[in-house]
Amino acid sequence: MAEYYDALETRDPEERERELLAALANQVAHAKARAPGFARTLKDVDPRAVGSRAALARLPVIRKSDLKALQESAPPLGGLNATPVEKLAKLFVSPGPICEPEGHGRDWWRTGRALHAAGFRRGDLVSNTFAYHFTPAGSMMESGAQACGCIVVPAGVGQTEMQVAAIANLRVDGYVGTPSFLKLIVEKADELQADISSLKKALVGAEYLPPVLRGALGERGLSVLQCYATADLGLLAYESRGPDGKVCEGMVVDEGCLLEIVRPGTGDPVPEGEVGEVVVTTFNADYPLIRFATGDLSAVLPGRSPCGRTNVRIRGWMGRADQTTKVKGMFVHPSQVAEVLRRHPQIRRGRIIVDQAEGQDRMTLHCEVEAVPADFAAAVVATLRETTKLRGEVQLRKPGELPNDGKVIEDARKYE
Amino acid sequence: MAEYYDALETRDPEERERELLAALANQVAHAKARAPGFARTLKDVDPRAVGSRAALARLPVIRKSDLKALQESAPPLGGLNATPVEKLAKLFVSPGPICEPEGHGRDWWRTGRALHAAGFRRGDLVSNTFAYHFTPAGSMMESGAQACGCIVVPAGVGQTEMQVAAIANLRVDGYVGTPSFLKLIVEKADELQADISSLKKALVGAEYLPPVLRGALGERGLSVLQCYATADLGLLAYESRGPDGKVCEGMVVDEGCLLEIVRPGTGDPVPEGEVGEVVVTTFNADYPLIRFATGDLSAVLPGRSPCGRTNVRIRGWMGRADQTTKVKGMFVHPSQVAEVLRRHPQIRRGRIIVDQAEGQDRMTLHCEVEAVPADFAAAVVATLRETTKLRGEVQLRKPGELPNDGKVIEDARKYE
Repeated sequence: MAEYYDALETRDPEERERELLAALANQVAHAKARAPGFARTLKDVDPRAVGSRAALARLPVIRKSDLKALQESAPPLGGLNATPVEKLAKLFVSPGPICEPEGHGRDWWRTGRALHAAGFRRGDLVSNTFAYHFTPAGSMMESGAQACGCIVVPAGVGQTEMQVAAIANLRVDGYVGTPSFLKLIVEKADELQADISSLKKALVGAEYLPPVLRGALGERGLSVLQCYATADLGLLAYESRGPDGKVCEGMVVDEGCLLEIVRPGTGDPVPEGEVGEVVVTTFNADYPLIRFATGDLSAVLPGRSPCGRTNVRIRGWMGRADQTTKVKGMFVHPSQVAEVLRRHPQIRRGRIIVDQAEGQDRMTLHCEVEAVPADFAAAVVATLRETTKLRGEVQLRKPGELPNDGKVIEDARKYE
Repeated sequence: MAEYYDALETRDPEERERELLAALANQVAHAKARAPGFARTLKDVDPRAVGSRAALARLPVIRKSDLKALQESAPPLGGLNATPVEKLAKLFVSPGPICEPEGHGRDWWRTGRALHAAGFRRGDLVSNTFAYHFTPAGSMMESGAQACGCIVVPAGVGQTEMQVAAIANLRVDGYVGTPSFLKLIVEKADELQADISSLKKALVGAEYLPPVLRGALGERGLSVLQCYATADLGLLAYESRGPDGKVCEGMVVDEGCLLEIVRPGTGDPVPEGEVGEVVVTTFNADYPLIRFATGDLSAVLPGRSPCGRTNVRIRGWMGRADQTTKVKGMFVHPSQVAEVLRRHPQIRRGRIIVDQAEGQDRMTLHCEVEAVPADFAAAVVATLRETTKLRGEVQLRKPGELPNDGKVIEDARKYE
């Protein structure tokens, strides 16, 4: 039973970085040549010059929230696909609607690596309870499980009694799905006094895993690990266990992507450890998403995982990055906060807090600064007004005073 | 645009028969060697001797209705799989529960041939509305569509508005699913005034297609053909169009199976044209079902299809073959009718009709006979009683008087 999925996981980190950046230059060239959407946005980019993290950080970001408009203007995939639609394997339609492609080939979504880390092995029988209809979730995990040599029971979501019966009758080894549905299945099995003791491992995702649930399932002999994947990008990160058998802190980034954490609303990487938006570049040949902003918040967890995998770790999902809100009926976007900061480089971090005073919306921009001139706050007020078309206040704070939670707009209004 | 899926479809019928029977001998040897269930039932069969239809007809039949008990005694597949479970791709769980395997490899269920005949071609976008959860239907059609080079939208069943939106937005070319769900989608599109005119072809199955629905859809420019497939065997037969563009009568048998029509409750082939139970032998290497009785009624349609395909045609689905009923609280099975006929070879066809007389169940065996001795009916009454443990009457009929509908037990009781 191999501990690692392949040799990539234990590469020297510098070697990995070199190989990823070399692949990046090729991917940029490929995307420019084959995907009209990238040919347009990367028109002035020389692929040979994209050989560093700094150069990557200058490339434009594509936001998840832009996909709908892009796809409407150039159906079905906004011109971001390098493989023409007629040579793809599947098209999914997620709520939005947002269309997602799947190409041909083994483990296209790269989930096999996460399943392997969660203990799934050749010959295991796996109940895949992610839905297969319209969403790619089911197909995403099925292809990964098959890459691990598992046999899949395509169970989908719902029909809890039938799920229990299938696990009990077929002696299913592993579960794939959401943690809350696993909880329902286990409770139903207890209620029916069905023997599901064959179930020894689970890979869960798509929602929060309460530590108390993981603990309770562990006590039943059911090991639960998490993964982080999206319908556009496939697997991004996954949990692992250390040599002591304990779940390691954080999630190891998948070998098939380059991950950045940026200040929400911008494409600017934050310092290591700071919470920001997850931006990913994949090396998928069919759908070469370059600097795709997921809308999810996370942070890099410094240091190395005790499991022996050498890739960067992130803290997992920490909320949604899109903090757009309405103040006095007007939209305020994270990109507007970023614009104010851009014009006043003395501000290290900024955060708009929206609350209410005397029944009215009140907007205050809190700015972390060192020493600044006396008229600095007034100048920022003016910029804030120019940028948002709204009157706002400014409060100067010391560096480190704002919480590290990735928020640039905080809605502190009380809604009854 | 090739008219036929491959050269097999237009083989000389005698060549096909020779090739199928040669393959049959190999399949019997394979099943005996690899599948413990067949090793047992075919213990005394010499594969080299199974080179004719007559020899095939002497092999034991496995009934769909036997699967549950077989699978319970040797989970999960009753020992009928030649490939061990750990080397399969998927396991499905249909109501029963009955477990069905899917192996690795291209178009494992052979549905590509039916999709091709229905006009599905490389680059077509296909909305697959068969369910993927627990049942193999979704996977069955997806793999066939991909073998045809189509791109699949795994839509599943339900969410009619989303189905309409996906077809309209993605400009879907083809529909796969039940005819009744297609009707719902088209009606919903009309109600929403959504443009689904891209939809030009449909392959439907799993239920009755009303001719008036096919006509109405045809008038909208949507060509609808049917196929007949089962969760155990994959594709069995499919419709086609003739050179005049009209739907040809009957369904052409798939090239990947050997089909027989037998008297319900027996393994005895009926004369060509007579209605009976569909029994199929597949050449699938993973799940080599030999003489699998589907429980469905159909009949061979004599003659050749005008589409140019030379394989045998059947009439499509004509009802369920399992006519087991209860008379005065006791089960009466088709196999018991067959046993009575076996003991009295003068009876060409027999049919039990159950009705009521004076508030009591009454069972009458109608027998088609030529000239018989005077005491013949009394002898049959005795055999009927011995076989069914029930008192019954016997009526002698002339050859051809009983309807050709595959029924050996007719329940003519009125239930209020």
